Amino acid sequence: MIEPIVLKGFRDSLPEQEITKKRIMRLLEDQFSSFGFVPIDTPTLEYTSVLLGKGGGETDKQIFRFEDNGKRDVALRFDLTVPFARFLATHREKIALPFKRFHISKAYRGENPQKGRYREFIQCDFDIVGVDNAEADFEILILMSSSFEKMGLSNYQFHIAHRGMFNSFLTHLEIQDKNVEILRAVDKLRKIGEEKVLEILVTELNDENKAKLVLQYINADEKDDFLARIEKLEALSGGENESSVRMKTIYALLKEYGIEKSFILDPSITRGLDYYTGIVYETFLTDLPNFGSVCSGGRYNDLASLYTKEQIPGVGSSIGLDRLMAALEELNSPIIKNTKSADIAIFHSEEDTAKAFLSAKAIREAGFAVSVFLDPKKKFKAQMNWAEKNNISFSVTFSETGYTLKNLETREITNTEKLEEVINCLQ
Amino acid sequence: MIEPIVLKGFRDSLPEQEITKKRIMRLLEDQFSSFGFVPIDTPTLEYTSVLLGKGGGETDKQIFRFEDNGKRDVALRFDLTVPFARFLATHREKIALPFKRFHISKAYRGENPQKGRYREFIQCDFDIVGVDNAEADFEILILMSSSFEKMGLSNYQFHIAHRGMFNSFLTHLEIQDKNVEILRAVDKLRKIGEEKVLEILVTELNDENKAKLVLQYINADEKDDFLARIEKLEALSGGENESSVRMKTIYALLKEYGIEKSFILDPSITRGLDYYTGIVYETFLTDLPNFGSVCSGGRYNDLASLYTKEQIPGVGSSIGLDRLMAALEELNSPIIKNTKSADIAIFHSEEDTAKAFLSAKAIREAGFAVSVFLDPKKKFKAQMNWAEKNNISFSVTFSETGYTLKNLETREITNTEKLEEVINCLQ
Repeated sequence: MIEPIVLKGFRDSLPEQEITKKRIMRLLEDQFSSFGFVPIDTPTLEYTSVLLGKGGGETDKQIFRFEDNGKRDVALRFDLTVPFARFLATHREKIALPFKRFHISKAYRGENPQKGRYREFIQCDFDIVGVDNAEADFEILILMSSSFEKMGLSNYQFHIAHRGMFNSFLTHLEIQDKNVEILRAVDKLRKIGEEKVLEILVTELNDENKAKLVLQYINADEKDDFLARIEKLEALSGGENESSVRMKTIYALLKEYGIEKSFILDPSITRGLDYYTGIVYETFLTDLPNFGSVCSGGRYNDLASLYTKEQIPGVGSSIGLDRLMAALEELNSPIIKNTKSADIAIFHSEEDTAKAFLSAKAIREAGFAVSVFLDPKKKFKAQMNWAEKNNISFSVTFSETGYTLKNLETREITNTEKLEEVINCLQ
Repeated sequence: MIEPIVLKGFRDSLPEQEITKKRIMRLLEDQFSSFGFVPIDTPTLEYTSVLLGKGGGETDKQIFRFEDNGKRDVALRFDLTVPFARFLATHREKIALPFKRFHISKAYRGENPQKGRYREFIQCDFDIVGVDNAEADFEILILMSSSFEKMGLSNYQFHIAHRGMFNSFLTHLEIQDKNVEILRAVDKLRKIGEEKVLEILVTELNDENKAKLVLQYINADEKDDFLARIEKLEALSGGENESSVRMKTIYALLKEYGIEKSFILDPSITRGLDYYTGIVYETFLTDLPNFGSVCSGGRYNDLASLYTKEQIPGVGSSIGLDRLMAALEELNSPIIKNTKSADIAIFHSEEDTAKAFLSAKAIREAGFAVSVFLDPKKKFKAQMNWAEKNNISFSVTFSETGYTLKNLETREITNTEKLEEVINCLQ
C-alpha cells in the first residue's frame, strides 16, 4: 500500500474550492473578454535558459529545474510574465499591436511554503503591449476596477504611483545614480519604519537633507487628495514633468469614468522590480488591512528585450488567484458560498430509473443542474446525507399520482401531477 | 539575445486556438455540471512513487521525473486517473459516494511527438465512483452523448463492449487463463488483420477451433443489431450471464432515453488496460474514419487499490482535448470558427478618449465585447488592419452629430444620434 500524500507546498483542490475557483476564473475571463482581451497559453515546461535569461538571483534558487530524458536543461515556469515576453518574440509577426492578452494558469516556485503561499499557484495576468500612452494605462486600471466590482468586492483601494515621477525627483536632487539603493531602502518602509529607512538613506546618500526629501516624497499627506499630492510631488521634483502630466491625464480619465475614488496616489508604492518605468500599483482590501496586495503591476517599456531587438512597451497587472481566494474566504464573500454540486437531486426506485433520467433531462433543459442519485438501493437516510454533503437544496421524487418536490432546507413539500409544474415551482 | 524557442513536443496556444479551447472546455464543464458532476484539481507534480506505484512498464520511461531541491523523487502527472485514485484515498472521509467528478487539466508524457500527440496535453476525465450498477454506466454514456451533441457533432458512434461478457465467454471455453494473451492478440486486429491474429491465437491456445471461436466472438455480424449481437455472444458463452444482463439493461435505458442509435455493440473493443472489468467503449467520428477514438473509458471495480484497502468501483470516460480539437478542425466545425477578440472596435481621436471608454462601457453593459483601439495616433489603414487581424466585424466611431456604426465586412454604415440606437442596431 502506498501512502496517498501530496508534496509539501502542493495541494489538492476539493470540489468546494474548485467550484469557487472556476467561478472566479470565469468571471475574470468574461470581464477580460468583454474588454477585447484574448487568452493565450504557453508550455508549463521551458528551456531553463529561456526562462532565466542570464539567470542568477533569488528566482534561480527557487525554480523547479531538471534535466529531461533528452538531456535538455528544463524548468517549470515560475511566473507568466517571462513566458509572455518569450511568446511575443516567438509569434511577433502573427500579433497585431496593440495586443491585449490575459493568461490564467499555474506557475511553480520551490520557496518555503507559508500561509497563503504554495509551490504551485495560479496566476492571472492581463497586459496591453505595443503602446505607451495614458489610454492603455487607464484601460488596465478600469479593468482592475471592474473586475473587483464584478467579484462583489467593494472595499478595495488601488494605490498608484509613477516610477517616472520618482525618477524625475531623483534627477532633480541629482541622486539618480543611487536609484537602486534608494528604491531598496524605501521598499522596507512598512517593515522597518521611517526612522530606520532614514538612517539607511543618510548612509547611502551621505546627505541628511536629501534623505529627508526622499522620505517627504514617499510619505503623502493624509489630507491631500490625488491632485494635491501630484502637485506636491511636482514641487519636490522642480516642477511638472512628462510623467506627472501622464499621471494627471490618467486621473482626469478616471474621474470622467467615475471611478477615481478607488484610486489613491501613494508615492510609497515603488515595486521592487527593475523593469517598471511608468505607473505602478498595488491593490489593498480595506477590510483586510494586513493582507497585503492582491493585484499589482505597472508599466514597463521593454518587455521582451531578452529575446528580440524590437522594443515592446506595455502595461499589465497580475492577480494571485490563491491569495485572492484566501482573502475572499476571510471576508466571507458571497462569491465563494454557493458550492452545491447541483440544484436538484432526483431520488427514485430501481423501477423508475428511465423516468428519473428523462425527468432529469427535462429539468436540465429548463436550465437547472440535476443530479440523479445513482444508488437507489440505499436507505432514505443515506440519500439525504448524500444530498446534504453535496449542498443540494431540492429533491424530486415520484409518487403514484405524480411528482414530489421537496425543499430540503425548509422541508416544504409540493405535490404536482406534471413535471412542468415542478419546473414552474423551481423558477 | 536568447532564441525564443519552445521545447520539442510542447506548444504555445495562440489566441485563436485558446479562444476555441476555452469555449470547448466551458461547454464540457457546463454539461458535466448540469449532471451534478463536480470539478476537482490535483497537483501537477507528485511523488514518483505515488504516481507509478510499483512502477515499471512503458509509462515509466515516458515520465518527466526528477529530484527536486529537497531531494524528493518527483514526477509530472502523466494522466488524471492515477491522481484521482490517490485523491480518493487521501480525502475519502470528505467524499459522499456515489461521487461524480470531472477534471480538465494538463498531463505530461515524454513520448516521441507525432501528429496530434504532444508531451503536454489536456485530458478531460469524468467518472462516477462508489457504485457498480447499470444506472451509473448509463449516466456516463448519456453524458458522453449529450456532450458530443452540445459540441455540434452529430456523426459519432459509441462502440461499446463488456469485459465481463468476454470473460464469461473465455471461461465457457475454459481458456480464461490465457486472458491476457488473447486480449493482446485481439487488440492487434485492426493493425495486422484477421489472418495474423488467428495465427497468434492458434499458437497461444493450441486449439484451432477455440481460436476461431474467439475471432467469431470478436467479429460482429454487420447485419445484427445491438440485441441480436448480445444474443449471439450469449450463445457463444453458454447462455445469459450477469454481464450480458447488465448490457441488456443499459441498452433498454438507452432506448427509453432515445439515444440508442449512437451506440454500437462492438465486441472488438477490448481496451488494453488491465483494470477494466465492465463496459468499455471508444468513440469514433464517422466523418473521420481513420482518426481513431476521441473519447474512451469503461468500468473498473477497484480504482484506488494502490492507496487504500477499500474497494472503490467506478465508471469513467476520458476525452483527449487536443485530439478532439484537431478533429473539430479537420471537420471544419462551427464551434472552432468564431475567434474574434471582440464584437465591436471603437476608434477615436485623442480628444475623444473619455467618450470612447464611456461608450464602450455602455455597449458592454448591453452584453457585447468591446475593444477600444488604444493607439489613436495610428493611421486609418493601420486601425482597419488591426480590426481585421482581431476578426472584429463592427466598428463605432464618433462624428460631430453622433455615432457611426460600420459593418466591417459588408462596409454598411449606420449613422445615429444616440448611443442607444447603435446598441439597438447591434441587437
